[in-house]
Amino acid sequence: MTDTNKNQELFETCDNKHDLEAGNSFCPRFSSDGLITAVVVDAKTHRLLMLAHMNAQALALTLETGIAHFWSRSRQSIWKKGETSGNVQQVMEIRTDCDQDAVELRVEQLGDGVACHTGRVSCFYRSVTRGSDGQIRLTFADQD
Amino acid sequence: MTDTNKNQELFETCDNKHDLEAGNSFCPRFSSDGLITAVVVDAKTHRLLMLAHMNAQALALTLETGIAHFWSRSRQSIWKKGETSGNVQQVMEIRTDCDQDAVELRVEQLGDGVACHTGRVSCFYRSVTRGSDGQIRLTFADQD
Repeated sequence: MTDTNKNQELFETCDNKHDLEAGNSFCPRFSSDGLITAVVVDAKTHRLLMLAHMNAQALALTLETGIAHFWSRSRQSIWKKGETSGNVQQVMEIRTDCDQDAVELRVEQLGDGVACHTGRVSCFYRSVTRGSDGQIRLTFADQD
Repeated sequence: MTDTNKNQELFETCDNKHDLEAGNSFCPRFSSDGLITAVVVDAKTHRLLMLAHMNAQALALTLETGIAHFWSRSRQSIWKKGETSGNVQQVMEIRTDCDQDAVELRVEQLGDGVACHTGRVSCFYRSVTRGSDGQIRLTFADQD
């Protein structure tokens, strides 16, 4: 649980749907646990790399530094992606969606060029497939 | 709140990290409120279209029909995307991530070819930018 009061200090809030969807004010809508979903994609290929969460501080740090910072729900702390592995993400552009409860980070993946802690380019490396027996299984997919 | 007991009937569960990350069993990890995040991208361009949530039933319906179904948190009901607008999403591939708490839907956007209820191709139509005055604002971005 992060300090949700902090959000109001760091970011604006929109009080109506029009401002939220059609306005120029950035008023990220953090969930009740103080987090917003971040979808990380490759800036050049648009390929989905990973999904993570940000609290207001992580979002502010990302905007200030141009380097992706998240909130680690398991460690309950700010997580500068790649701080240990070197697989830092340089943020080329940030977008938000219609109701501002998610952000898209368009990044250049530095270091070994892999976003996933398993050593793969993308965390989405398995397809959900239905076999001829009707059984649903995962199959390892191409990294494209 | 959806019936989380339903999940166990519809999908497997993995009881260790190895199976979760490196196995062939699909064992989606629904959150405490019974939902999994779905990242919807264009199957051809990989462009991020929208973010939504699925309960076990929506995920099962999507797998069965090949048409994207979500859980509407506002209406608290199954939401067949495009049922009213005609902007149905044909699912070409489903992937899951390393810890199986998210799915990627690679779709062909049918109907008017727009995923967003605002009539845009993608819900992520605004960039978060910092002005020369240091102020953070949104600017309407190209649909690419």
